[in-house]
Amino acid sequence: MRAAVLHAARDLRIETVAEAAPGAGEVKLRIGAGGICGSDLSYYFKGRVGDFSLREPLILGHEVAGEIECVGTRVDGLAPGDRVAINPSRPCRSCDYCRTGRSNLCRHMRFFGSAAIFPHVQGAFSETVVARADQCAKVPPTMPMRVAASAEPLAVAVHAARRAGDLLGRRVLIAGAGPIGMLCALVARRAGAAFIAITDLVDEPLAVARACGVDEGINVAGEPERLARYEVDKGFFDVAFEATGAPSALASLFRVVRPGGRIVQLGMMPPGEVPVPVNQLMAREIDLVGAFRFHEEFATAVDLLAKGLVDVGPILSAELPVSRADEAFALAADRRRSLKVHLHF
Amino acid sequence: MRAAVLHAARDLRIETVAEAAPGAGEVKLRIGAGGICGSDLSYYFKGRVGDFSLREPLILGHEVAGEIECVGTRVDGLAPGDRVAINPSRPCRSCDYCRTGRSNLCRHMRFFGSAAIFPHVQGAFSETVVARADQCAKVPPTMPMRVAASAEPLAVAVHAARRAGDLLGRRVLIAGAGPIGMLCALVARRAGAAFIAITDLVDEPLAVARACGVDEGINVAGEPERLARYEVDKGFFDVAFEATGAPSALASLFRVVRPGGRIVQLGMMPPGEVPVPVNQLMAREIDLVGAFRFHEEFATAVDLLAKGLVDVGPILSAELPVSRADEAFALAADRRRSLKVHLHF
Amino acid sequence: MRAAVLHAARDLRIETVAEAAPGAGEVKLRIGAGGICGSDLSYYFKGRVGDFSLREPLILGHEVAGEIECVGTRVDGLAPGDRVAINPSRPCRSCDYCRTGRSNLCRHMRFFGSAAIFPHVQGAFSETVVARADQCAKVPPTMPMRVAASAEPLAVAVHAARRAGDLLGRRVLIAGAGPIGMLCALVARRAGAAFIAITDLVDEPLAVARACGVDEGINVAGEPERLARYEVDKGFFDVAFEATGAPSALASLFRVVRPGGRIVQLGMMPPGEVPVPVNQLMAREIDLVGAFRFHEEFATAVDLLAKGLVDVGPILSAELPVSRADEAFALAADRRRSLKVHLHF
Amino acid sequence: MRAAVLHAARDLRIETVAEAAPGAGEVKLRIGAGGICGSDLSYYFKGRVGDFSLREPLILGHEVAGEIECVGTRVDGLAPGDRVAINPSRPCRSCDYCRTGRSNLCRHMRFFGSAAIFPHVQGAFSETVVARADQCAKVPPTMPMRVAASAEPLAVAVHAARRAGDLLGRRVLIAGAGPIGMLCALVARRAGAAFIAITDLVDEPLAVARACGVDEGINVAGEPERLARYEVDKGFFDVAFEATGAPSALASLFRVVRPGGRIVQLGMMPPGEVPVPVNQLMAREIDLVGAFRFHEEFATAVDLLAKGLVDVGPILSAELPVSRADEAFALAADRRRSLKVHLHF
Repeated sequence: MRAAVLHAARDLRIETVAEAAPGAGEVKLRIGAGGICGSDLSYYFKGRVGDFSLREPLILGHEVAGEIECVGTRVDGLAPGDRVAINPSRPCRSCDYCRTGRSNLCRHMRFFGSAAIFPHVQGAFSETVVARADQCAKVPPTMPMRVAASAEPLAVAVHAARRAGDLLGRRVLIAGAGPIGMLCALVARRAGAAFIAITDLVDEPLAVARACGVDEGINVAGEPERLARYEVDKGFFDVAFEATGAPSALASLFRVVRPGGRIVQLGMMPPGEVPVPVNQLMAREIDLVGAFRFHEEFATAVDLLAKGLVDVGPILSAELPVSRADEAFALAADRRRSLKVHLHF
Repeated sequence: MRAAVLHAARDLRIETVAEAAPGAGEVKLRIGAGGICGSDLSYYFKGRVGDFSLREPLILGHEVAGEIECVGTRVDGLAPGDRVAINPSRPCRSCDYCRTGRSNLCRHMRFFGSAAIFPHVQGAFSETVVARADQCAKVPPTMPMRVAASAEPLAVAVHAARRAGDLLGRRVLIAGAGPIGMLCALVARRAGAAFIAITDLVDEPLAVARACGVDEGINVAGEPERLARYEVDKGFFDVAFEATGAPSALASLFRVVRPGGRIVQLGMMPPGEVPVPVNQLMAREIDLVGAFRFHEEFATAVDLLAKGLVDVGPILSAELPVSRADEAFALAADRRRSLKVHLHF
Repeated sequence: MRAAVLHAARDLRIETVAEAAPGAGEVKLRIGAGGICGSDLSYYFKGRVGDFSLREPLILGHEVAGEIECVGTRVDGLAPGDRVAINPSRPCRSCDYCRTGRSNLCRHMRFFGSAAIFPHVQGAFSETVVARADQCAKVPPTMPMRVAASAEPLAVAVHAARRAGDLLGRRVLIAGAGPIGMLCALVARRAGAAFIAITDLVDEPLAVARACGVDEGINVAGEPERLARYEVDKGFFDVAFEATGAPSALASLFRVVRPGGRIVQLGMMPPGEVPVPVNQLMAREIDLVGAFRFHEEFATAVDLLAKGLVDVGPILSAELPVSRADEAFALAADRRRSLKVHLHF
Repeated sequence: MRAAVLHAARDLRIETVAEAAPGAGEVKLRIGAGGICGSDLSYYFKGRVGDFSLREPLILGHEVAGEIECVGTRVDGLAPGDRVAINPSRPCRSCDYCRTGRSNLCRHMRFFGSAAIFPHVQGAFSETVVARADQCAKVPPTMPMRVAASAEPLAVAVHAARRAGDLLGRRVLIAGAGPIGMLCALVARRAGAAFIAITDLVDEPLAVARACGVDEGINVAGEPERLARYEVDKGFFDVAFEATGAPSALASLFRVVRPGGRIVQLGMMPPGEVPVPVNQLMAREIDLVGAFRFHEEFATAVDLLAKGLVDVGPILSAELPVSRADEAFALAADRRRSLKVHLHF
């Protein structure tokens, strides 16, 4: 089968690779659509994500949906032809974290398309992939494949919302109007946030933000004073999502989140150590918490999409065939032209 | 001024009563609309609510909105002409509950239109009322008065939702399609519930339920088997709201709420002791919790209405002048003909 | 090997049964001590526990500790000669509850010595038993076997404490001075409860209670007015543990638990439906929650015993050889003469 | 009356100042003992605490206990001769924080002996002080005054423990073996922590730590490898309290706190921005939260002292008359010679 294999930074090759057969409890899927994520972009342009560098050729991709081609033994409830969103997480199910309901922190996680362990875990930008049955969540036949593929980043946002606590009636600020920030806005609105603002350094995604339920978009490069207005009375927002990974963004949130509020760091990993106003964190009792991937929120994300309770339409920018993968990665990296770009196979 | 004074069961008189002047920190309001609540109906038809009987004439009414006529000394941020939703709760602000953020449990609560203490706390079905400034929440000039008056029962539902925990992606069952049950449905949908079912004994309110975001209405008198379907696999719903006050309704919820789920009792007070399957509560670790009135959720309710995030339109059945109060109470008591009925003054 | 096999109510036979060999991931243990639990007593005297009746001969026993005799393949960290507390829970590790950190609610739980499923899960009142490696928690060589065997009921109490929420500085009431109630007292004191009262119908266990850290023992049969004192000002206790299974006990707690407090039902399953003052539960926002068995609290219980942070000594009443099992069951059933009785093999 | 008035850094004068009379709801107290806190030391040696500089003469002191001399009007439950621990917090009771149960974040807090607002709030290192009645918590007649005065810093530790979440059976690390760190150890042990380690740069307080229930004292200057042992398997501790205010201490905690764990910053305010490994915070979902002063935990602290559930004896180093205040401050500042030093009047 054909797959998008990264050999080094900017060296992505569409190659023929061997196909696997599903084992016990596994299924084989034909991939319908795959979204390009920030980590895919980082591997593609830099050959690494954070501290994890490419040490062998890696099939990229983990935001995928497809159709079941065949099922292995001991698989219940899934059949060839079923359309499914594919959860790229394969936790061990036996470590202390899996047993206590935090499998996103699994000590032996195998996550599609990741160089965090060696040999690397191959990804799913390929014609077919083999997955454990519990990685598959059925979607309605009418759901477009790239919507189904959005369940993965949506699950990231749902998990971050759970880490943020009850959002009903809350005032929410999101730093970073990329795909993850935008999905946080969609989830915050769905969860009942009463006011949502989002910041970015460029205008184009801010223009899309209103369609995602955002009440105010702020270009902090061009109009920093608009954010500064929220500093009065010790801050305005109950909750902030930091989805840029930029150190300066995090520190700025402490000025506009009210005492007793909560800041959730998610998405792009910030580099190394970041300056944090810990005196404010302490004297104002602001919580700073991380949100990493997701757990049972994948099923929630699929549910919200299937029931039409979250509409990811506004962030779906383009879909290209895998033969034009380089073009797709270039488009996905251009924040003025795109939010989420999908490949099809 | 004119007021609707209840002298005994079914003896409501529109009388002239003395007007008060606002003291320090108080305002005087001209009432625009007042919703008839289940407790008003209970006083009107039975002369009591639960254990609290009428011992002196009582002005009914606590779901009210109005316009500020004049302000007393030491009032900031409110001015004559401001339109406000009026919070009928006047907690003492100094008891242990007020100090620990649960003022709905205030030991010295004064709640409009209640015979719980003697002398009774007079209500607000009257031309004017005096309230503490912190009981007033400004609403937009365009908000109809009876929408503003709905902030109070909506706050009850928001408080119940907070007691229920995070509803994003949850499956929710509501017992009782009266005004409170319906508002719970509106809040649950706003808070992101993925599936909402509601039960009742009559069909008419179930027909309104879809407009409130309900996915399935079940007439448990006519089609009990439709609820029974949800008993398989130890139950289906994550959360249930019991808003009927009927003992049999509560017990039935334990069969359809999944292990680890939560049942919230709110609204009409059930009479005396109710049979509860405590063995199921224990072996399935189902939480049974009460929700009583509200606290800072009043401000949240006003916010949700003002921002258009909750639309109470479907439950607003009729609005009558106070001169037709008996007719309004009869209509409000007829569950086949009305949900929420308002008086205007 | 020899085992204590129950054939019918009051028909316990010490018989020779076949020994099993440990499979992959399993170990074989030589049992050192086994505590007689309320459910063992119920099987022994009534032939059933709640709705679960004996349908085939059943080896009783699930509060056990022992020494590893041999290990199967794929077992890490355990070796012959290790002394361990044995967790009688064998959850499936793959159902929705196991995956979300509530394996005590596992849909496919196999729990030692239980007639809840058929064929029954055999217990551990026997010379040897085979268990999954993750059911074994090592204890120090100096810990007496019956102390190690107490980890199981202690874990029940620790789990109930977690369900009760933070106990530091709280006022705690425990209904029922049996072994589970007494362990709740020990745990509540260890967790920092500022005041602990316990109730019972007989005096003898109340006399033991002080050694378990209890501040006040109340015989509610003889001196009901001593409990009634705590009804003033709407109740005194922050938390109550209902460990009797008696319907009247539960209702009485609502009068002495303060508004906003929490009642935890644990231990003996109450029969069928129990009258609950749901009006109080609602108007006072008292939580009623169940606690069923335990989850990762088994490891915590072993830790607390090993570090000497909980001393179960006061409740260890007697230890008899399995050959005197009938005598041991009679003693264990006599609340005036014993709290916890152990068998050895 | 005589009071210890700070005029500038190292310029503390014992002066005669005017006495106030208690107003409505207030009492006048004769101070028995006053503990010297880190903020008192900072004012004394540097003339400021964090960003708050001395702008007028300030009576220091906020860890105080005394005896009621006379009471003003409208005071219930307190009488001349009562011995009380004095809560130095005087929140407004009407702002949004006071109303939602977080009065430690009160927008209009008046806290004894603080230059945070101007005119400064005078402290209680004086013969008498006037306080609001709700600032007084009665203590048993036999409780030494300096134990009662310890309720205040103990409340800080109790509040931090509440921010840390359930400590029963947890592994706890405390950075900084000063008075606040030591009180955190006492509280963690009382709350059931299974293992407690504490770090410091000097040996003397570590020697005291065992008496405070600490299992391991680590001199991170002399034996850094002892802490490094806990880095294996992604960290060992469930909870860490950062009580040094040293930026390097905070960063080091992220290496030894396990994924999903929690770090609480309390006590000395760290200066400005502190480097935090936000990538670890995110990928390991470690919560970083602040704990600032206390709220209803003051009553809990008094309760724990009165019931003998926490013994602050090991940290009470010395008590000097106010006439030797300079000597007392020098002693309190010498971490090798003292933990908590009290003045008497």
